[in-house]
Amino acid sequence: MIKTIEWKNNRVIMIDQRKLPGQETYLVSSNYRQVIKAIKEMVIRGAPAIGVAAAMGVALGAKAIKADNLKNFLNRFNKICEEMTRARPTAVNLSWAVDRMRRLVENSADKKIEILKKALIREARNLLSEDIAINKRLGFIGQKVIKNRATVLTHCNAGALATGGYGTALGVIRAAKEAGKQVQVIADETRPFLQGTRLTAWELVKEHIPVTLITDSMAGYLIKKGLIDAVIVGADRIAANGDTANKIGTYSVAILAREHGIPFYVAAPCSTIDRRIKTGEDIPIEERNEREVTHVAGRRVAPSGTAVLNPAFDVTPHAYITGIITERGILKAPFRRSIAGLWQKDKIRN
Amino acid sequence: MIKTIEWKNNRVIMIDQRKLPGQETYLVSSNYRQVIKAIKEMVIRGAPAIGVAAAMGVALGAKAIKADNLKNFLNRFNKICEEMTRARPTAVNLSWAVDRMRRLVENSADKKIEILKKALIREARNLLSEDIAINKRLGFIGQKVIKNRATVLTHCNAGALATGGYGTALGVIRAAKEAGKQVQVIADETRPFLQGTRLTAWELVKEHIPVTLITDSMAGYLIKKGLIDAVIVGADRIAANGDTANKIGTYSVAILAREHGIPFYVAAPCSTIDRRIKTGEDIPIEERNEREVTHVAGRRVAPSGTAVLNPAFDVTPHAYITGIITERGILKAPFRRSIAGLWQKDKIRN
Repeated sequence: MIKTIEWKNNRVIMIDQRKLPGQETYLVSSNYRQVIKAIKEMVIRGAPAIGVAAAMGVALGAKAIKADNLKNFLNRFNKICEEMTRARPTAVNLSWAVDRMRRLVENSADKKIEILKKALIREARNLLSEDIAINKRLGFIGQKVIKNRATVLTHCNAGALATGGYGTALGVIRAAKEAGKQVQVIADETRPFLQGTRLTAWELVKEHIPVTLITDSMAGYLIKKGLIDAVIVGADRIAANGDTANKIGTYSVAILAREHGIPFYVAAPCSTIDRRIKTGEDIPIEERNEREVTHVAGRRVAPSGTAVLNPAFDVTPHAYITGIITERGILKAPFRRSIAGLWQKDKIRN
Repeated sequence: MIKTIEWKNNRVIMIDQRKLPGQETYLVSSNYRQVIKAIKEMVIRGAPAIGVAAAMGVALGAKAIKADNLKNFLNRFNKICEEMTRARPTAVNLSWAVDRMRRLVENSADKKIEILKKALIREARNLLSEDIAINKRLGFIGQKVIKNRATVLTHCNAGALATGGYGTALGVIRAAKEAGKQVQVIADETRPFLQGTRLTAWELVKEHIPVTLITDSMAGYLIKKGLIDAVIVGADRIAANGDTANKIGTYSVAILAREHGIPFYVAAPCSTIDRRIKTGEDIPIEERNEREVTHVAGRRVAPSGTAVLNPAFDVTPHAYITGIITERGILKAPFRRSIAGLWQKDKIRN
């Protein structure tokens, strides 16, 4: 099994996703600022994985606080939490995970600093194992929408590498395979960061799930030819009405799916749903460095004098989404109601 | 002015488009097989430019034929023509240009070999200057659809580098600028060959036309935000019903344009219309080498074990096309009738 991130000997170890698939190297962080840097630079990416990294980063930061009283500890702890929250803006799992760490401290009966530090480390490690369990549950639920011999298109990487392990969109694929179905995947390369080429293809080859790589511009050609049975993607933030922010290019794939009458599924844990945000219009979209577009594989390909836009995400309106596959079931339209239902039934505490 | 291709001292000189924008180098071909290789390897690309190159290649081939009688000359000449026609399958301008060279020989009153050789060279050079004139006319006609301060999205490169000079889609932009309008261009990078990044951006920067580069996956984001006023692309082959083959990814852009109610124009000379082909279903789509997808800027980015698809073109059904801008006017739906009308009125001889 691919280990995206782990806590070991009071250090956070992450596979360096910038270097895959050429090199399988691991980055060891011994302080929280290194974790923030790793998130910003996309050593680790994918909303659920960023959540786990943020929690472990906060635990690492808390552990190193030198404070002789609780007030000083909490001051410093809150600053670390704020700094962590700002690492990247779009994936809500980041602030969700940090909030969970904050709540642990707030709700702790025993406010001894050393006890709190240990509890924070335990919570961060729990978050990792919970995330894997959630993905497996989500995959098990979602695989029911995958027919035997299906060809599934995915965009970006919503696999083990985007999560604590197992994956969301690719978790559904893995679960379909475990359920005895033959599935093959068409992977969009996903410029500019090439998560499809470098990460999705790598994961699937490792597990002997047939994968065919295409450029993002080829999805329409294959869908029009009737070669795709379903689209499944991950999510970085889902608004209360189901509008879904995900990797740039997801919106185009959703439009293509609708135009050709094939189902378009989002697979994400409930922690990716942000009920405070009413519609996708209000989801902050990160604009990343121009260099990701002007350079390819480290080499400049654009002439100088060119302006560049590099929005890292786009928003797919809920009307284009067939279903949102979560660990609590597959949400269907009307999404505002099905999403609210998750909390009304008191299934989720936060 | 950018010189895409020229005939000089009985050699064909082409700017090497594989090396732009990093290096401005010129490839000199002294025999027709070098021209075929240059077309196959995309030293020169773009349907009208391929047409000019094919004609010059045929002239180069004919010039070198050592034959002591007309029959032997024609035998060899026809073989060269056939070989040239097979260089690439999708752009119809290639076979159109070769057919024109053939007809010149068939219709020539004087069948002396040396006379024919000279006439073929003259014809190939005429084809180049005609192409530039056609583009200027097409641009002049097309610029009327561009409003002042418009932002135009284009895919791939349908500029001076895709033609004898001036360009089709970018010819419309140039003509709009010459007509005193402010225009800015959003250029899709156009994976896998990056014609948008390397060629369109380079051409426009050279002419001080504002250009902003995006990855192919970002077009939907910008269109949804209302930042694009019109889409203009080139064409590799247009069927009798208006269905248009163009660079892979064009179809997705057309769907996005339709979904958001913005006009989608194709700009192409009449030589790109293939009346023998009834619908886009019958246009042959070239499948190119996997390496273009697995490698980026010369470096392998995909893991081994990944299958790859690399269709170089897709077909946009006529229903998504607002108008086809030609040197004979802007064709509108119903396209079968407007296209047939070009020949019925005896405006075009072939």
